[in-house]
Amino acid sequence: MIKAGIIGSTGYAGQELVRLLIAHPEAEIVWYGSRSYVDEPYSRVYGNMFKIVDADCRDDDLQQLAEEADVIFTATPQGYLAGVISEDILKKTKIIDLSADFRLKNVNVYEKWYGISHKAPALLREAVYGLTELNRENIPDARLLANPGCYTTTSILTLYPLIREHMIDPATVIVDAKSGTSGAGRGAKLPNLYCEVNESIKPYGVTTHRHTPEIEEQLGYAWLAGEYEKEEGGAWNLFRVGQKEYEEGNAGGKKALTISFTPHLVPMNRGILATCYASLTGNYTEADVRAAYEKYYGNEYFIRILPEGTCPETRWVEGSNFVDIGFKIDERSGRIVAMGALDNMVKGAAGQAVQNMNLMFGLPETEGLRLPPVFP
Amino acid sequence: MIKAGIIGSTGYAGQELVRLLIAHPEAEIVWYGSRSYVDEPYSRVYGNMFKIVDADCRDDDLQQLAEEADVIFTATPQGYLAGVISEDILKKTKIIDLSADFRLKNVNVYEKWYGISHKAPALLREAVYGLTELNRENIPDARLLANPGCYTTTSILTLYPLIREHMIDPATVIVDAKSGTSGAGRGAKLPNLYCEVNESIKPYGVTTHRHTPEIEEQLGYAWLAGEYEKEEGGAWNLFRVGQKEYEEGNAGGKKALTISFTPHLVPMNRGILATCYASLTGNYTEADVRAAYEKYYGNEYFIRILPEGTCPETRWVEGSNFVDIGFKIDERSGRIVAMGALDNMVKGAAGQAVQNMNLMFGLPETEGLRLPPVFP
Amino acid sequence: MIKAGIIGSTGYAGQELVRLLIAHPEAEIVWYGSRSYVDEPYSRVYGNMFKIVDADCRDDDLQQLAEEADVIFTATPQGYLAGVISEDILKKTKIIDLSADFRLKNVNVYEKWYGISHKAPALLREAVYGLTELNRENIPDARLLANPGCYTTTSILTLYPLIREHMIDPATVIVDAKSGTSGAGRGAKLPNLYCEVNESIKPYGVTTHRHTPEIEEQLGYAWLAGEYEKEEGGAWNLFRVGQKEYEEGNAGGKKALTISFTPHLVPMNRGILATCYASLTGNYTEADVRAAYEKYYGNEYFIRILPEGTCPETRWVEGSNFVDIGFKIDERSGRIVAMGALDNMVKGAAGQAVQNMNLMFGLPETEGLRLPPVFP
Amino acid sequence: MIKAGIIGSTGYAGQELVRLLIAHPEAEIVWYGSRSYVDEPYSRVYGNMFKIVDADCRDDDLQQLAEEADVIFTATPQGYLAGVISEDILKKTKIIDLSADFRLKNVNVYEKWYGISHKAPALLREAVYGLTELNRENIPDARLLANPGCYTTTSILTLYPLIREHMIDPATVIVDAKSGTSGAGRGAKLPNLYCEVNESIKPYGVTTHRHTPEIEEQLGYAWLAGEYEKEEGGAWNLFRVGQKEYEEGNAGGKKALTISFTPHLVPMNRGILATCYASLTGNYTEADVRAAYEKYYGNEYFIRILPEGTCPETRWVEGSNFVDIGFKIDERSGRIVAMGALDNMVKGAAGQAVQNMNLMFGLPETEGLRLPPVFP
Repeated sequence: MIKAGIIGSTGYAGQELVRLLIAHPEAEIVWYGSRSYVDEPYSRVYGNMFKIVDADCRDDDLQQLAEEADVIFTATPQGYLAGVISEDILKKTKIIDLSADFRLKNVNVYEKWYGISHKAPALLREAVYGLTELNRENIPDARLLANPGCYTTTSILTLYPLIREHMIDPATVIVDAKSGTSGAGRGAKLPNLYCEVNESIKPYGVTTHRHTPEIEEQLGYAWLAGEYEKEEGGAWNLFRVGQKEYEEGNAGGKKALTISFTPHLVPMNRGILATCYASLTGNYTEADVRAAYEKYYGNEYFIRILPEGTCPETRWVEGSNFVDIGFKIDERSGRIVAMGALDNMVKGAAGQAVQNMNLMFGLPETEGLRLPPVFP
Repeated sequence: MIKAGIIGSTGYAGQELVRLLIAHPEAEIVWYGSRSYVDEPYSRVYGNMFKIVDADCRDDDLQQLAEEADVIFTATPQGYLAGVISEDILKKTKIIDLSADFRLKNVNVYEKWYGISHKAPALLREAVYGLTELNRENIPDARLLANPGCYTTTSILTLYPLIREHMIDPATVIVDAKSGTSGAGRGAKLPNLYCEVNESIKPYGVTTHRHTPEIEEQLGYAWLAGEYEKEEGGAWNLFRVGQKEYEEGNAGGKKALTISFTPHLVPMNRGILATCYASLTGNYTEADVRAAYEKYYGNEYFIRILPEGTCPETRWVEGSNFVDIGFKIDERSGRIVAMGALDNMVKGAAGQAVQNMNLMFGLPETEGLRLPPVFP
Repeated sequence: MIKAGIIGSTGYAGQELVRLLIAHPEAEIVWYGSRSYVDEPYSRVYGNMFKIVDADCRDDDLQQLAEEADVIFTATPQGYLAGVISEDILKKTKIIDLSADFRLKNVNVYEKWYGISHKAPALLREAVYGLTELNRENIPDARLLANPGCYTTTSILTLYPLIREHMIDPATVIVDAKSGTSGAGRGAKLPNLYCEVNESIKPYGVTTHRHTPEIEEQLGYAWLAGEYEKEEGGAWNLFRVGQKEYEEGNAGGKKALTISFTPHLVPMNRGILATCYASLTGNYTEADVRAAYEKYYGNEYFIRILPEGTCPETRWVEGSNFVDIGFKIDERSGRIVAMGALDNMVKGAAGQAVQNMNLMFGLPETEGLRLPPVFP
Repeated sequence: MIKAGIIGSTGYAGQELVRLLIAHPEAEIVWYGSRSYVDEPYSRVYGNMFKIVDADCRDDDLQQLAEEADVIFTATPQGYLAGVISEDILKKTKIIDLSADFRLKNVNVYEKWYGISHKAPALLREAVYGLTELNRENIPDARLLANPGCYTTTSILTLYPLIREHMIDPATVIVDAKSGTSGAGRGAKLPNLYCEVNESIKPYGVTTHRHTPEIEEQLGYAWLAGEYEKEEGGAWNLFRVGQKEYEEGNAGGKKALTISFTPHLVPMNRGILATCYASLTGNYTEADVRAAYEKYYGNEYFIRILPEGTCPETRWVEGSNFVDIGFKIDERSGRIVAMGALDNMVKGAAGQAVQNMNLMFGLPETEGLRLPPVFP
């Protein structure tokens, strides 16, 4: 059994980790971390866990936790992990970080978008970006795994084959994303009150949302990979090479990749939908595009390429680790509309974290994650 | 592997059966019945099942299905099963009926409340009422299992210990129940449109809802059981004896049990909450009442008696087979307010059906049902 | 033009007062009070008022406000008004209090249920209870008007004719009420977050909700009135006499009136539904009961007695000052189920306050309030 | 008093017309048309109108209605009005059509996008497009007014100043729109059921939605107007000239205007949000863009240009005729994100229809429409 500790177990993402791990046949939770509820029964914080979880919440003590756990999940605010992590801890345990601390390779980009200084930049290079389907080969050996953001996972997976195959012009990419309210966290803030969110939709963080550089960096790797393969051929580790170029300021290779990303808040609990627009670089048909998606995702259990004419809807993935992707070519405008949907709490956070844990511990990737979506 | 067939698999309850059975380690679905979608891929009717269920929908053919399946679930309109069932079929397969056809023992009561004539009254006696926790000993041998209604399960489980122990006056019982909209089914009817249900709450079926006599009958057994035990002592099969008395028109024994039951439609997908009121028959304390609940439910996995001062909320049971029960004594009025919550699609329909299937096939009762509630 | 000031104008009830008063042809708002947003533009707190309200929020200064306003609305926490009101202020201006400070006549009852000491008990006698339809004759001369609670208005109006006519047994009254979330106010509290409220229904304040004694007191007057009329005959001022008896501890006259009241939180913004149960005192028919409702409400603009077989639904009153009432006699149990619905923000708070203001300033009672309900 | 008749008064848009017209001081409704509910009381179809509307629904009889009404609103399916309208009728009464029959000037475009043949193409030229703020000078004399679509009004008003001033490249315009569910109408269709819409967001009609050519045509006029003004100067009737060019196939003038338009269904009753993207044609600052919006909308009552940094949210316009517009320049990508929000039932349908009625009958444009938005 894998002994897992969770720091930040009483946030929504932390609680979803609890839901997934207590049902996981090869894992057990040994530490329910929560600074806000120290010594309170976990099931008093989350009534759904009554008679399922008996433990009390414990304070944050990464040192002690590293002694007790084989893996630590950090579902914490930005900056926390970078402030407490150390080589010593990484020698004792593995860390899967659901915050943004180790997602971006370039510390300047991090500090610019997040507005805080990074306390452990030396570990940025080692950290492995955990978008499982795209970085699978690098995950098993990771000590420090940077689990991607929810908007990020949706946007990248939806656009990746198109970018990698250079079927779309990277200068034209627009991602209009919509998220359920659990993505805003469990903080008691006025804008997240029921009556403020219900019966309304709003954009927020327009042009400034922190997931933007993460999407650009990863899609930048993908574009580079396409260039390398054309020019040099041969097998190629997307992220290792991509990261190197990126660190050297060569992001996106010979072509700039600057997306417009607009998140919206939707009156629903779970789900993210990303509607992505880009100009096609050629007269591609539905079959051409489908072939590209099949090439990269044809064998993926958690990615479902929808039949022609079908658009993803968040209701069909709720509660599961699936990503649904559909697309439509617009011949009038020469654009493609590519759409992806997932559950922000599962594939967008806790589910992908468990997927990565499985790889890091030599388990089948889908272990504990073959939950059918719950509808309605 | 248990071969299961579902008639009515494209209704909400049918689809929930699909969700539970495909994740069940000892069952496989061999027949996705749906008169409305014959030959259409099941996953086109329910997009959540894309790449999970490959089968097409099949027409209703109980004879053929009885050849292929070890158990048939009927999630069908009232009257369907009674019209097609036969001794021949029951010799070949077991039936778990999610409709109301075999829930009431008295055919006159059925025909009065449902407004249709019963086509198979001879089987009423044999049918076993599947409120698992209360009728567990009779379920393993059942050929025809009448799976209880959603409102019914909530109301009966909430009130049972109080009635059985004669702690409340059965003449004063009021059940005010609130249900999510999935209980109204997937029929394309104007009152169930999003804009009609959203941002509103309404009572319906006031004094005439069909679950009323089912609640009264089962609580009537419970009251009788209390009488028998006091007067005669000894072990006692609640439902076998209760049914007999009930068939003979002796329902509720020496004291009439006529409840007021009012269902309400709530703008949410899942969940039922029953707020029950009754006058206490003595000066019972919180501890007295708690002891009664513990006596009957102390060892039940799926029934969670909440701590003092905690009321059930439907969010804490969503997606699971749990029933949460809380209560509060009102010294001012001499009444008790007992409250129960469950997921109408799971414990109120498909989950309890699987729970009963487990018993009927000698499996652990919780097999495939230990799903933690999904929140938020 | 009536000059109106609002203390607590940035709560939900305060904002609804703003909405109603700016559309009122005979009123203008001269003071947008809000301790939390002093000097901020009101329209930044409530974006709906952008380009409609130009004023900034002002601090609470009842003395100054009394100089500037003809009427002051206090939409404030319990205890605030009692702590600052004075004879001096009442000589200068009228006060319509949306808090509970002056609703109960008996200071002991207030202090017991609200858990705070009352700072101005001497004014309790003078304060006029503003359930407009039932106390209309006393409102025009009021200096201090106690505007009823939202649950209270619904429950009392629904039950009043039945109690007044002694058609139901006051010892059997149960009120099961359901409210939208705006009733919980705009405080940034975890239980009111979108994801906590959405997709769930829960009871709260079971047996202890503060609106309970208010309902009991007012229905107690009604019962008394019935007694007086039978025994003594003649015209009779319900509240003046009722209050006197009540103050003397003779509440409910010769028969105790102790209700069970259970509020529930529903995932919707607005609306209250009260489902009321009571045993009938005779074999009353639908027509008998209807006659009673017509007797008291037949000429009321804001009370709509629904046709036979129709139950109130909150969607049909949203945004308006209407109260919809329906009922159903249950011959099986000898009970009546009486149901009332209103918009908790309008008739349950700001609308009734304006209705009372109209009477206090000699205007037609419906002035500024003939808004049709908004659907969907 | 203007005598108004409504054909299709029992759809959602029809009902909203009823709500607005019964509160309108200069109008009265003389005909509640509804083929589905002939002879039924209108208030039984819409319970909110109980005791407000006494009339029964009447069958569709345009001839008779033309005798009785000064203005006829048609809130009917596409093709209906074109099939029954005649010069004779237009001589007797004015028509405000909420369907799409007379919105597009080019009959081929209509027939291609709507898939039906147009029965009255001769009237296309006469019909006046009723986007009030942009076509105000042509509306007073209209006999046949084509009231714009909901998505259309939002998209056009949001983009108009930018297109008119040639500040954005028309070849780069993307409109990602989100609508509440009332826009889908009151038809009893499975996809509109509560449980199908709730807790989900989905795109639909991707690249094929019928509002696309309407947006393109009107924005095409705007672009042309910009060209004309630059090249020729002088006063200029946007729509008269624009229409002429457009009819001649010269849409968009010397530059093609082909937008990508993607509507989404959001789990809320009312509201449309359009998030629009386009590449700027120069290094425009926030102040430049704001000046353009002020130039065209500075004096508009119903258009609110939000302060810098503020994005529109549908909750702030609900129930009102306002359009809220905000924008953000993205220097990184050289794009602008312009966002507009309105209530699809009011400014997107019935409210704008009444606004046009006011102009057609010489009333102040805001008569009956100065309703503050209802929140929450």
